Amino acid sequence: MPAEPLLSNRPSSENSRDLAEEDALLTGQPTDKSDFSPRSWKFWREIGLFVWAVVATALVIVLAVVYQKSQDSHNTTPSPSGKRNLIFMVSDGMGPTSLSLTRSFMQFQNGLPFSEQLVLDQHLIGQSRTRSSSSLITDSAAGATAFSCAQKSYNGAISVLPNHDPCGTVLEAAKKAGYMTGLVVTTRITDATPACFAAHVNNRMEEDRIAEQMVGDYPLGRVVDLMFGGGRCHFLPNSTDDSCRSDSKDIVSMAKDKGYHYVDSRKDFDNLKGGKSIDLPMLGLFAETDIPYEIDRRNENDVYPSLKEMAEAAMTALSDATRNSDKGFFLMIEGSRIDHAGHHNDPAAQVHEVLAYDAAFASVLKFLENDPTEGVMVSTSDHETGGLATARQLHTSYPEYVWYPSPLANASHSAERLALEYNTYLEKKNPSEAERVDYIRGSISSGLGLTDISDAEVAKLASDPGTALYQYAEMVSRRAQTGWSTHGHSAADVNIYSSNPKLAMPLVGNHENTEVGDFLREYLGVDVDAVTKELQEKGTNLMVTDAEGQQVSWMGRIPEEGERLDGQTHLASYGGDFKKRHWNHGRGCDCGH
Amino acid sequence: MPAEPLLSNRPSSENSRDLAEEDALLTGQPTDKSDFSPRSWKFWREIGLFVWAVVATALVIVLAVVYQKSQDSHNTTPSPSGKRNLIFMVSDGMGPTSLSLTRSFMQFQNGLPFSEQLVLDQHLIGQSRTRSSSSLITDSAAGATAFSCAQKSYNGAISVLPNHDPCGTVLEAAKKAGYMTGLVVTTRITDATPACFAAHVNNRMEEDRIAEQMVGDYPLGRVVDLMFGGGRCHFLPNSTDDSCRSDSKDIVSMAKDKGYHYVDSRKDFDNLKGGKSIDLPMLGLFAETDIPYEIDRRNENDVYPSLKEMAEAAMTALSDATRNSDKGFFLMIEGSRIDHAGHHNDPAAQVHEVLAYDAAFASVLKFLENDPTEGVMVSTSDHETGGLATARQLHTSYPEYVWYPSPLANASHSAERLALEYNTYLEKKNPSEAERVDYIRGSISSGLGLTDISDAEVAKLASDPGTALYQYAEMVSRRAQTGWSTHGHSAADVNIYSSNPKLAMPLVGNHENTEVGDFLREYLGVDVDAVTKELQEKGTNLMVTDAEGQQVSWMGRIPEEGERLDGQTHLASYGGDFKKRHWNHGRGCDCGH
Repeated sequence: MPAEPLLSNRPSSENSRDLAEEDALLTGQPTDKSDFSPRSWKFWREIGLFVWAVVATALVIVLAVVYQKSQDSHNTTPSPSGKRNLIFMVSDGMGPTSLSLTRSFMQFQNGLPFSEQLVLDQHLIGQSRTRSSSSLITDSAAGATAFSCAQKSYNGAISVLPNHDPCGTVLEAAKKAGYMTGLVVTTRITDATPACFAAHVNNRMEEDRIAEQMVGDYPLGRVVDLMFGGGRCHFLPNSTDDSCRSDSKDIVSMAKDKGYHYVDSRKDFDNLKGGKSIDLPMLGLFAETDIPYEIDRRNENDVYPSLKEMAEAAMTALSDATRNSDKGFFLMIEGSRIDHAGHHNDPAAQVHEVLAYDAAFASVLKFLENDPTEGVMVSTSDHETGGLATARQLHTSYPEYVWYPSPLANASHSAERLALEYNTYLEKKNPSEAERVDYIRGSISSGLGLTDISDAEVAKLASDPGTALYQYAEMVSRRAQTGWSTHGHSAADVNIYSSNPKLAMPLVGNHENTEVGDFLREYLGVDVDAVTKELQEKGTNLMVTDAEGQQVSWMGRIPEEGERLDGQTHLASYGGDFKKRHWNHGRGCDCGH
Repeated sequence: MPAEPLLSNRPSSENSRDLAEEDALLTGQPTDKSDFSPRSWKFWREIGLFVWAVVATALVIVLAVVYQKSQDSHNTTPSPSGKRNLIFMVSDGMGPTSLSLTRSFMQFQNGLPFSEQLVLDQHLIGQSRTRSSSSLITDSAAGATAFSCAQKSYNGAISVLPNHDPCGTVLEAAKKAGYMTGLVVTTRITDATPACFAAHVNNRMEEDRIAEQMVGDYPLGRVVDLMFGGGRCHFLPNSTDDSCRSDSKDIVSMAKDKGYHYVDSRKDFDNLKGGKSIDLPMLGLFAETDIPYEIDRRNENDVYPSLKEMAEAAMTALSDATRNSDKGFFLMIEGSRIDHAGHHNDPAAQVHEVLAYDAAFASVLKFLENDPTEGVMVSTSDHETGGLATARQLHTSYPEYVWYPSPLANASHSAERLALEYNTYLEKKNPSEAERVDYIRGSISSGLGLTDISDAEVAKLASDPGTALYQYAEMVSRRAQTGWSTHGHSAADVNIYSSNPKLAMPLVGNHENTEVGDFLREYLGVDVDAVTKELQEKGTNLMVTDAEGQQVSWMGRIPEEGERLDGQTHLASYGGDFKKRHWNHGRGCDCGH
């Protein structure tokens, strides 16, 4: 309908003039009939109708838009449009009980009321079931393969399937799709969790081969734009003192040839200016093997960057690098050593690892608050470690309902560190019996803050230094009354957290760990199957030379029975032999984390 | 604006006539100028405007209503209108690990794939933090007080506060508001969890007094319309064989005087016809103390009703009784003995208890599907029991990543039942050493399905029958490789489930257990504070006569130091004395569930 006639002059009618007079009476203004012009009642009526119609129509439009937005925000499937950053956090080995343990410790240490929560607590959205294809209890390799490939595989598998075919990973597919990619860990960057995103080997123990693949020496070339963590020894040739490689390859040089900028010290890290001065691609290896536990790292004038510092630098660098791209980034951040503290049954080390993870988690939330993309963070664990219980019955008498956070607060060192120092002391000093006892009492007092140590505890440490790690941890555990059922993993469901339950709606509730993997690829909208196909095509008959000079598959040997931490299928029966393995108990549990 | 002039005749204008002619050209109809009458373009323009305005306004209204409804459905606070049923389920002592344990057992026993879930799994919405006012580890009394009163209190408190004032409960307030009320449990109806909804005593051990209060002998009179469970011995005078009262009061008679219909057998229960023939108020006590474990109950030709049967009968009866009311019902259903299986460290008994709870949970979901009210079910635990781990290291050697469901499937009896039978046999038969060994081997073989029992295990049972309960349980646990850290409770967070995450939105995520209590009262919209006030007014100086003929407060004696399972405040330090209590370890752990 044209608007013009409404504004043009029109003749009046008697009707309208009468009403105009009435208007004049009401307004107190004289009606000049001779001057009676287009501004009649009729004119105003039509104007009024028009305004009503336009306002109502405008309201319709506004309401429709608001309703649509409201629907979108409650939608279960994220809308596929828009640039996206995806940050995937892994709390390796953190079961539900670790949260209760750490929360109460945090309240105790800071004198806070019981209502004080961890940051994590405020973002719980569900739980994940963790079993692998080969056992009810997964290892980190099968656990991370469920995330990276969204498929169940056997314990020990680094993004290969039970039939030993490689499976494409979400990180590889993200890189192909134009995203930038990153991995930040506190363990070796070649350890199972990070390895599963950018390497494919049949046995997680082949960390030398994993190091090569991660810098791009494999069918897909370089796929990781940023790596921060430990594990430097796997990148150095065995001609150097700091190497743990079994061959003379120099993976740092190989990485540089492939374009990586390499840093390996605190000074280097500080020069990155929190990520603002990072030139990608970037390889940062800040420790020979694992980065020390947080409880020990704090005592060392921050020689090593914290998980939070590395995470923040990575987010800054990847965000800057994708500023002008229509694709965002995929970043995996792992609190790797919560798991190790579980393996060591060391509750003091664990609470500090969880708090460090909580701090990194808070940093990610802060980053996402200001993130202009449709960014989301999802956080979960691959499994529980240790069978941790926040209760422990010390005697056959019925237990009181207590556990004590204070022994965790008194400890200033991990059991790992104290055991290492003790064994180094024994090697270097060859002390007398009395000197040894003095040393032990000193280490317990200064390292664990314990003053009620028994002669029996001291004597055992003196006579059996090989199990010092477990003995130091047990002293703290026993006094805190925290319980452990194993030095290995358990089958407990683990928690899932997210920065945004609406965007992460597919993970709300209880889910199989492969569904976490499904979410990652679907949120980024990347084609992982195409990567799987490419890997399988390019990898067929692809051989590499191993340390002994033999030609082997690029994914390494298939582990034999006995090399694998296989477990059992979930339907397999207990066979009656529950004592079939005895082992050197003097050895720590560094295998199969 | 008056509508009438729009319908009256009006003269045309040149402008409008020209446009009318244009219209005619467009429509192909001839313009009869002589017949140019009130149905002019101007008229139609105004009609058009009017229709536009009305349609747009109607759209505004429709969109506004749709938007409002959409907002309501996503709202965190349920709208206060409408009739409501609220079913609150408590899985006493079920921690997160119990789910992993039971799920894998269920898959194993039924030969199902790993993707098969429990019904519970499909309804996870969050977790609850469980500590009490007196300890980091709660007991069931303080746990249930957090639900019933929405307040933290000390371990042992039955809906009384730390200062020993009574606090009104959601059930009492619901009754006052016109709701019907019910309690269904598999333990004694006088045990801590059910007691906290309809009784107030300073010490959970006073179950005699609790029985009296629950049938209405306390300041508020009768508040429970239906009770199903065990614990008959606390209702019978100590002149009868089946009594466990310390006085001669007949609480069944008292209940009948207060209007209760009383049933106490399977036959009686069957006559209730699944709830269709229940006359309220109803008191049904189907066992002297606890109803047997599900694993044992199944072997006894269903002498006792199952949790599911009792729950279904209760829902049917309460739903029928409120059919013509504008208020619905509040029903608490407890899977009471998951906790006991945890105390006994008996994984075979536990998985069957959890499955029985899962079946009752499914029944509640089914009921709510057809429920015409705004019905909702929320399910949670008061605490974890046992420090259960689905992993157990049996030797000092590094453990394989396995646990075995099959020993749980082989067991046909609980350790509790086998221990009871063994001790009864010893008392009655006074057997020779050889007969005793034969009996033991037979009981293990037929009751636990174990064929690889060691001579040492048999010898220990023969020599130490006082700990037979724990010994039988340990035989299964060890072979299944399930770990336990205590015979008491632990501080792990526990899961929250709901039939409807939208209606139960305030409990999505991680919450303090008192927030569960907040939700219950808020969902029903009842005034619990008024009940607290009434209790405190009517209760002041109210005395009752105890078993020794002494006058005591109606809430019983305040427990003295040493009678309480108090624990510690969460900020209290470990004092260095971690061996202060030694106790008769021959005694089972029937205290302080």
